[in-house]
Amino acid sequence: MPEFAEPLARLIQECKRLPGIGQKSAQRIAFHLLRAPREDSENLAQAILDIKEKLGICSLCNNVSDGEICLYCRDPHREQSQICVVEEPHNILPIETTHAFRGLYYVLHGAISPLRGIGPEQLRIKGLVDRLNQVEIDEVILATNPTVEGEATAVYLSRLLKPLGPRITRIAMGIPVGSDLEFADEVTMSRSLENRREM
Amino acid sequence: MPEFAEPLARLIQECKRLPGIGQKSAQRIAFHLLRAPREDSENLAQAILDIKEKLGICSLCNNVSDGEICLYCRDPHREQSQICVVEEPHNILPIETTHAFRGLYYVLHGAISPLRGIGPEQLRIKGLVDRLNQVEIDEVILATNPTVEGEATAVYLSRLLKPLGPRITRIAMGIPVGSDLEFADEVTMSRSLENRREM
Repeated sequence: MPEFAEPLARLIQECKRLPGIGQKSAQRIAFHLLRAPREDSENLAQAILDIKEKLGICSLCNNVSDGEICLYCRDPHREQSQICVVEEPHNILPIETTHAFRGLYYVLHGAISPLRGIGPEQLRIKGLVDRLNQVEIDEVILATNPTVEGEATAVYLSRLLKPLGPRITRIAMGIPVGSDLEFADEVTMSRSLENRREM
Repeated sequence: MPEFAEPLARLIQECKRLPGIGQKSAQRIAFHLLRAPREDSENLAQAILDIKEKLGICSLCNNVSDGEICLYCRDPHREQSQICVVEEPHNILPIETTHAFRGLYYVLHGAISPLRGIGPEQLRIKGLVDRLNQVEIDEVILATNPTVEGEATAVYLSRLLKPLGPRITRIAMGIPVGSDLEFADEVTMSRSLENRREM
């Protein structure tokens, strides 16, 4: 490992803790910041501090929010009778990018995982039950991850929420669009067969 | 583009200005920092600010340094009679990683580029000439980039420094080790032929 002046070495270490950033990327970023105008560095540092200072959790859906209520919950144009349930705030992103869903979200902040000792009581489920009891909801879409934990959470929520009235649906699992059957793993392939639709 | 709470959107924007970081990586980093302990964020922000506050330029070789003299120049174990000349401080890295060079460095902070109006007088060349006049130097290795600008700079320095006595060498250009001749561009291939060695 080459030597660096101490402040530079420390910045490289800190950058390496970020997801997807290895030694080489960290060095590139550090040297970029070294050459960049001081104002750019200060803006970046401030932005990093601000997400801790200025962001909280939406009191309705647990999404990250810069106010008491997040931008989806406070948007009157969103469909109020559909709720899409996700594990983490960043799971909202890929759904929003599709523009295929215009309802509201609900963030659990985790998934049931007996192996890691996480049961339903550690997730933020109460707010969802309360909402279903207070407001008329037509459909709850369970968009937890297609993993053992995400599936367990979906099954649990489905049993818990069905008696409260709404339609409960689960996002489809199957072969990714544009890929080749040849590259599909067995579990995905069998899911894809199971979930086949009439044409 | 999906919507984000303002502080999150700003952090994503700032991250996208870093080299090699696009929209997706920036989102991943921002959500990572959102979930990370506050201490981690503060350490990163502080490290970013510190490289502006605590780093300067070595008065001997112009490398970045946390003191008056950089860690290479103040290391008595480095070979004092060999100087490797590079364009930018970050060019030292790939050379150090090889462990094949144990001499000192000299950083020009640029390269001659008539197209961009950069002449020799804008580079930090005087310190190098002064050193050659004051200290006995056996060899100056010109490790400027294998570009038009780097070559022009190497040719200029070679003419300037040769009368001062030391051996002047240039790093070899040729086919990268482990690659295939098929993928070599014409210029590299012809350089590789030109620079062929007896076996």
